[in-house]
Amino acid sequence: MNKADIRRLLQEVKNNEMEVEAAFQIISDLPYKDLGFAKIDNHREIRVGYPEVIYCEGKTVEQVKNIIEFMLTKENNILATRANEKMYEAVKAVCTEAKYNSLGRTITIRMREEVLTDSYIAIVAAGTSDMSVVEEAAETAILLGNRVEKIMDVGVAGIHRLFSKIDIIRGAKVVIVVAGMEGALASVIGGLVDKPVIAVPTSVGYGANFGGLAALLSMLNSCASGVTVVNIDNGFGAAYSASIINKL
Amino acid sequence: MNKADIRRLLQEVKNNEMEVEAAFQIISDLPYKDLGFAKIDNHREIRVGYPEVIYCEGKTVEQVKNIIEFMLTKENNILATRANEKMYEAVKAVCTEAKYNSLGRTITIRMREEVLTDSYIAIVAAGTSDMSVVEEAAETAILLGNRVEKIMDVGVAGIHRLFSKIDIIRGAKVVIVVAGMEGALASVIGGLVDKPVIAVPTSVGYGANFGGLAALLSMLNSCASGVTVVNIDNGFGAAYSASIINKL
Amino acid sequence: MNKADIRRLLQEVKNNEMEVEAAFQIISDLPYKDLGFAKIDNHREIRVGYPEVIYCEGKTVEQVKNIIEFMLTKENNILATRANEKMYEAVKAVCTEAKYNSLGRTITIRMREEVLTDSYIAIVAAGTSDMSVVEEAAETAILLGNRVEKIMDVGVAGIHRLFSKIDIIRGAKVVIVVAGMEGALASVIGGLVDKPVIAVPTSVGYGANFGGLAALLSMLNSCASGVTVVNIDNGFGAAYSASIINKL
Amino acid sequence: MNKADIRRLLQEVKNNEMEVEAAFQIISDLPYKDLGFAKIDNHREIRVGYPEVIYCEGKTVEQVKNIIEFMLTKENNILATRANEKMYEAVKAVCTEAKYNSLGRTITIRMREEVLTDSYIAIVAAGTSDMSVVEEAAETAILLGNRVEKIMDVGVAGIHRLFSKIDIIRGAKVVIVVAGMEGALASVIGGLVDKPVIAVPTSVGYGANFGGLAALLSMLNSCASGVTVVNIDNGFGAAYSASIINKL
Amino acid sequence: MNKADIRRLLQEVKNNEMEVEAAFQIISDLPYKDLGFAKIDNHREIRVGYPEVIYCEGKTVEQVKNIIEFMLTKENNILATRANEKMYEAVKAVCTEAKYNSLGRTITIRMREEVLTDSYIAIVAAGTSDMSVVEEAAETAILLGNRVEKIMDVGVAGIHRLFSKIDIIRGAKVVIVVAGMEGALASVIGGLVDKPVIAVPTSVGYGANFGGLAALLSMLNSCASGVTVVNIDNGFGAAYSASIINKL
Amino acid sequence: MNKADIRRLLQEVKNNEMEVEAAFQIISDLPYKDLGFAKIDNHREIRVGYPEVIYCEGKTVEQVKNIIEFMLTKENNILATRANEKMYEAVKAVCTEAKYNSLGRTITIRMREEVLTDSYIAIVAAGTSDMSVVEEAAETAILLGNRVEKIMDVGVAGIHRLFSKIDIIRGAKVVIVVAGMEGALASVIGGLVDKPVIAVPTSVGYGANFGGLAALLSMLNSCASGVTVVNIDNGFGAAYSASIINKL
Amino acid sequence: MNKADIRRLLQEVKNNEMEVEAAFQIISDLPYKDLGFAKIDNHREIRVGYPEVIYCEGKTVEQVKNIIEFMLTKENNILATRANEKMYEAVKAVCTEAKYNSLGRTITIRMREEVLTDSYIAIVAAGTSDMSVVEEAAETAILLGNRVEKIMDVGVAGIHRLFSKIDIIRGAKVVIVVAGMEGALASVIGGLVDKPVIAVPTSVGYGANFGGLAALLSMLNSCASGVTVVNIDNGFGAAYSASIINKL
Amino acid sequence: MNKADIRRLLQEVKNNEMEVEAAFQIISDLPYKDLGFAKIDNHREIRVGYPEVIYCEGKTVEQVKNIIEFMLTKENNILATRANEKMYEAVKAVCTEAKYNSLGRTITIRMREEVLTDSYIAIVAAGTSDMSVVEEAAETAILLGNRVEKIMDVGVAGIHRLFSKIDIIRGAKVVIVVAGMEGALASVIGGLVDKPVIAVPTSVGYGANFGGLAALLSMLNSCASGVTVVNIDNGFGAAYSASIINKL
Repeated sequence: MNKADIRRLLQEVKNNEMEVEAAFQIISDLPYKDLGFAKIDNHREIRVGYPEVIYCEGKTVEQVKNIIEFMLTKENNILATRANEKMYEAVKAVCTEAKYNSLGRTITIRMREEVLTDSYIAIVAAGTSDMSVVEEAAETAILLGNRVEKIMDVGVAGIHRLFSKIDIIRGAKVVIVVAGMEGALASVIGGLVDKPVIAVPTSVGYGANFGGLAALLSMLNSCASGVTVVNIDNGFGAAYSASIINKL
Repeated sequence: MNKADIRRLLQEVKNNEMEVEAAFQIISDLPYKDLGFAKIDNHREIRVGYPEVIYCEGKTVEQVKNIIEFMLTKENNILATRANEKMYEAVKAVCTEAKYNSLGRTITIRMREEVLTDSYIAIVAAGTSDMSVVEEAAETAILLGNRVEKIMDVGVAGIHRLFSKIDIIRGAKVVIVVAGMEGALASVIGGLVDKPVIAVPTSVGYGANFGGLAALLSMLNSCASGVTVVNIDNGFGAAYSASIINKL
Repeated sequence: MNKADIRRLLQEVKNNEMEVEAAFQIISDLPYKDLGFAKIDNHREIRVGYPEVIYCEGKTVEQVKNIIEFMLTKENNILATRANEKMYEAVKAVCTEAKYNSLGRTITIRMREEVLTDSYIAIVAAGTSDMSVVEEAAETAILLGNRVEKIMDVGVAGIHRLFSKIDIIRGAKVVIVVAGMEGALASVIGGLVDKPVIAVPTSVGYGANFGGLAALLSMLNSCASGVTVVNIDNGFGAAYSASIINKL
Repeated sequence: MNKADIRRLLQEVKNNEMEVEAAFQIISDLPYKDLGFAKIDNHREIRVGYPEVIYCEGKTVEQVKNIIEFMLTKENNILATRANEKMYEAVKAVCTEAKYNSLGRTITIRMREEVLTDSYIAIVAAGTSDMSVVEEAAETAILLGNRVEKIMDVGVAGIHRLFSKIDIIRGAKVVIVVAGMEGALASVIGGLVDKPVIAVPTSVGYGANFGGLAALLSMLNSCASGVTVVNIDNGFGAAYSASIINKL
Repeated sequence: MNKADIRRLLQEVKNNEMEVEAAFQIISDLPYKDLGFAKIDNHREIRVGYPEVIYCEGKTVEQVKNIIEFMLTKENNILATRANEKMYEAVKAVCTEAKYNSLGRTITIRMREEVLTDSYIAIVAAGTSDMSVVEEAAETAILLGNRVEKIMDVGVAGIHRLFSKIDIIRGAKVVIVVAGMEGALASVIGGLVDKPVIAVPTSVGYGANFGGLAALLSMLNSCASGVTVVNIDNGFGAAYSASIINKL
Repeated sequence: MNKADIRRLLQEVKNNEMEVEAAFQIISDLPYKDLGFAKIDNHREIRVGYPEVIYCEGKTVEQVKNIIEFMLTKENNILATRANEKMYEAVKAVCTEAKYNSLGRTITIRMREEVLTDSYIAIVAAGTSDMSVVEEAAETAILLGNRVEKIMDVGVAGIHRLFSKIDIIRGAKVVIVVAGMEGALASVIGGLVDKPVIAVPTSVGYGANFGGLAALLSMLNSCASGVTVVNIDNGFGAAYSASIINKL
Repeated sequence: MNKADIRRLLQEVKNNEMEVEAAFQIISDLPYKDLGFAKIDNHREIRVGYPEVIYCEGKTVEQVKNIIEFMLTKENNILATRANEKMYEAVKAVCTEAKYNSLGRTITIRMREEVLTDSYIAIVAAGTSDMSVVEEAAETAILLGNRVEKIMDVGVAGIHRLFSKIDIIRGAKVVIVVAGMEGALASVIGGLVDKPVIAVPTSVGYGANFGGLAALLSMLNSCASGVTVVNIDNGFGAAYSASIINKL
Repeated sequence: MNKADIRRLLQEVKNNEMEVEAAFQIISDLPYKDLGFAKIDNHREIRVGYPEVIYCEGKTVEQVKNIIEFMLTKENNILATRANEKMYEAVKAVCTEAKYNSLGRTITIRMREEVLTDSYIAIVAAGTSDMSVVEEAAETAILLGNRVEKIMDVGVAGIHRLFSKIDIIRGAKVVIVVAGMEGALASVIGGLVDKPVIAVPTSVGYGANFGGLAALLSMLNSCASGVTVVNIDNGFGAAYSASIINKL
């Protein structure tokens, strides 16, 4: 509902083309579906360009299933993150097309075929242990319609591995860097590319890593410009922002 | 025992209407029941207006049962928080009226029917995942005799959902805002209502959420005035304070 | 602008009592004054019951003076917090009625005489060193139209001092507890009164106090129910919330 | 020096069009200027698209002046951040075109006129106190060739101020949100726009704000998708990333 | 080996009453028993007044059993803390007199009857949930030969319960205060008694309690003088220090 | 006022030896002097054995002077801690006997000559930089009537310096260990003596010392038993507790 | 590939001894083996002197097995750290020579017999509970070809145990100190030896130990010079650095 | 005093070549000079290989001067760190050879000419702002007799600058890496050299750098092996350890 909409509406009321009560409903009835325990934001795709994504952590299996059942009545593709096996089984029972990525912990349902972008998002990871975050990011990016290139295990301890892949990284429109431990990969890549870099600290590591805090602080303090940061292990968030940028 | 009581007592002693020893007992016998491992504060209702509530965390099933058995000898309604299923079963065995809210983890026993207040407490939650804190708050508020309105899943990521419910929130005498992640809902509501807002940060979230710390700090730093804060996940505490205010 | 307002507006448009453009202006022109560097929220008093308060920290002397000059064109009383001497002098130059509380660091301007409430807010402080927070709270509460009782230096290290004042504390409609160091005073008072307690941790202390963190955590974890907390040293916020409650 | 360059170079050596030693120099002489205490990265514009920016914190006045003197020998525009008055005076002495933004603490020198982008970066700030970060961001963005729109003082405590400016925010290609205290503005805007949002937490606030930590954690935990975060008070970094995105 | 010992030894060597090698052995043979994975400090009782206590956390069942088996060859009483059921069973198998306190997680073996001190240690606890720490402290204090008085569940939320027990607390030679949550009990008792107070913060609580940190900071910042603090949940350490003081 | 006092009072009322109003005054008039901004706890010496000490931090020069002026009307010795030069000059003006220890930042006034204890408190410090804490502790201990032995600069980096002084440390009735940096001295001494050890972490150090946190955590986690801890830089608190113990 | 290599290569191209494409391959083909989920750094031994070590945490059993299977095709000795029993069984199935140290959680495979160094690394541990870190360090050091001496349970609480072993510690070329709790052992040894000391804080302890943070900060703040620190529980890292030094 | 010394001493006593009292003095007189406020560890050079270094922070000008005056009576070179200008002037007055490095804040006095080592220590710094730590490290290393190579401003944001200097870094016997912000340089160098790397985090940076914490955690979590860490800004400590290693 932008300004033009309001003007048109008012004009229709003035022209007696619309009743006061109907106009009131349109203004006050905000476009979401209330499931009692959740309010599904149908309006979201119009407002921010993407359908709502289901964050499963802290929800019951029943709740996840119910939300997806409702969403299936729309023609949108569906993404659920941080989903466990049980949630997947419950969803599978109501929608056989549902796919589960056990490493990335995502459920995806494709209701319509999406043409992927020409430009691609590079997802670069420091170590094999960062793989689950990479998978969450990749599933998200692809479902949102982006071409993706994954570059695994190019941490700075053996920096020649990174350099051998630098062309494919530089070719991306936006780069996601996934790294745990000290997260130095984000700074090194930030200094080598002229594209936006989105850094995802992971909780990989131990001791003074403090569950990803070391990598998070490292990335926030990157000496390389052009690096922005999302929450620890937030592969979804990085991919979502990357997708917005990739489609600009 | 206020000043008037002391004066009257002394007068009775002077008038020989009371023996020194009896007066001494009244002064020194403080009104609690000693169960050995716990001292139940009978005097509490007179002093602060509400009966003692049982915080079950860290207590054994046996201890919870024993405390409730003693309390059943009084005519008060009973509330136990952070109770698990096993505690409920033990209590159920000695009091069939006991009810368990598995989401809110509360045991409630209604010994007398309470007339609810006309004014109500609004409990507003950002997401479905905050539901267990909402339930603890709601059970507490109702048992303490308050009318309650719950408004679920109105987090700021889709702020129109909040605006559609703003009248019911504004109609409350006191508002409890329950939110995890960044807890922004408290500030937004604080800027929209002219009632006391009690914010409950929840431990919902991950990574740099640090078990609710992000929401807690966010709420303590709210740019909106009129917001006070309780401990992370402390639905009980918020409801207790809200009840005091609602009944002023 | 509540629902009734919108309905009436639409009816007027329908009745041709109002032009579309005029209706559009009313809906879209939100009621604030734009000073370029600041947007003064005129609408605030209608919405949340109090005029906007000027938080001076991080503002220039010039900005503070300009904001107050604008506000003087309205008939509201004015409160500026965290103001330094220089700001006061600049304000004094444009408004001789301005008063400065150097301990509380507040500038107050009384444009109309306020009748104070019958019920009062008790502001209870643990130590003499907490005085500046007490003063900020008291200036705020009084300017907002509340009767205030201050009880100083009743920290728990000499708890009989507190007990000698307990009647005046219990007589309040709402109690503000100001304490630094370990902040134990909030819990003790919380266990003694049946009124809402708003706790203000102060940065008074040293070493493992960590700038008020010790008192903050202490108050958030209070074993006494009925205690809510505001930010460290936030006397203004406590008084603001207390005022809302006192006027319910 | 990309792969094609290396191949061409090798071919020239093979064709005897270039001597081994000359080829060696080209490969091994990396393109930076060594000033002893600093190595100026001339190659940077080719590699990441922008000239090196001088971060003045921790450098002496003499060092800043020397670096800028060297850079003046190139035709690039020059930006120095976190510069104090003394540094500016020293630079002014060697380059009269130097401009100083005392709020944003930047020195800028325009050596060639830049055509600004059609699309613009919106810089949205919660409060007047966040202005110095806004200025650093704006100076950076403009020097890097971007059109900028500043929207000041639209914090969530009076959310209608934000809504009145939502069209200008939505019209941007990328949005920078600057906020201190609880930083809720980032989440609210993140839920309202379909553009990349870069959040800058500021150190504005006190007590449990912990120098910007509250806003930082808040923004990292944003419930709205599409929000990435830079370091506390890092207006430069946000503008740098925004510029990359704006020019995609 | 004090100075007198060294002088006597040297005199004996001079007098040819002792051989050089024998003297060397006495000087260099330090008095501990090496079990390979552990060095048992036999000398400890002479040096610091108490036998070594076995801290079982992080040790295997086998190691605990072996250490105790060795210690049984001496006539000392034996105390093992943080022991689990399995460790107890293994010890029971080699020493039937071993006793297990499952709440306090201690194994005790009494090899000789100890006459308890006349003066006593008061162990005062805020809540029932603090009981396991109380038990560890009590078992330790008694085994080290002290008379103990336990006062349970006298937290400050119902401070009259504390006052009813104040005489027994004041009668102690040293007072141990065990409290979780905000730990205010330590300050209140510190202000009421003229004896050394040793405060033990417990990890009882949730949310912003951060595993006992809130109580720890609270106790370290106690506004009452005469309070010293031990590690979170360290009932053993408190009792050990209290025992030293009680026996002075 | 103990139980016997109350009984006697009541008996006197009964015997008409005392009027009701007089008895009421005695019961309700708690023994402190109200200076408005401070309540001086006259009763304190009777209750906890020592007169009140003035903590000057956060007080004005005027307030410190006024409190001391009042206290001079009593015959007690006076101690003010964390006092600056200006406070001393103000006090000196009203009491020429006042002495200032500029390193320890204490003002002391001796109104009556105290006989020092036979047993002594050993104050052991790791480095020369810990001296100000040592001085605060020593001034406190001596004013409270204790004999004191200071052992400076015996940190564990050159542990033979400690061993050369071990006899004088072992000869004390109670040992205060003052150390910054890693605070290892407390553990080493704790393992060598059979007396109560009170550890004072100091803020001496830099970087990851975090204002004394490193030493504080180190001392709380001491592997040696018999060590209790006070707040960072709290020489006064350590000496106060040591004095209680030394006089048992 | 050092400068000489590049020169020679270019000369060969010039001399037509090598084709342009072949030279290009040599320059661009960096020496690692890509397994898809991991890039094994074959070049590492040439570059940093040791083969790559497999860090198993966060890897699947399948991944660990595959990496080791590939490495078995080389003649290097193999070390896998943080390996669990299941990983060992999978590796055992493909290589019967594999050995598992269940305390140290290492898998080692010896493909060629290594002559150990004459000089040795001393691994000194404070307590029996630090044993798993000691084992990880010892397995690493030995596999890397170093002679090792382990000295267990010489924590500072009974410092004579340490002194009895001081000669063997001083005889080492480099000393690893493993300690939890307050980690004081590192400082004491640092003050007694003239060899490099590498300190490993362990997560042994509880309460305010915060998972090894206390020992970590303690070691970083060591008052003894010559002490450097690795991550909490990082026995591998300490041994790796020690090995480099031991072989200098 | 090693075992052989003790044996010889005892033999001399036995042979009547030494009196008991004289032998006693030798054993008990530990070799330090007591200045009252400081105990100068003369024995240190024999024990750990280097003379004591004066850490000036927290010492008075007078104390620093007195310590150095005493040390001048020995023939050792003298190093004082964290010294300010005033200390230098005071020292200069008693020793004209004293030199001051104002960036590194060191005072050095060369009493005898030292032959520098053949092998060298490389000190590599990320940025110009890290220069003061580099200077402290260099002054220390040189005074301790080491050849030093400084490589400035090779942070990872322009990694080609580092690669151009890699040969000089690889040529060192030990490498010190000095970096603030995210400290990634330590990991990158750790992956490129086969020498011990000592990482020094600096407090350079702002916001979520938290005074060097970001770089410290980053370095402790380095994914490259062979990296050990010293305290934030501790250039002295890094150089001291590097010197021990360089001279092995």
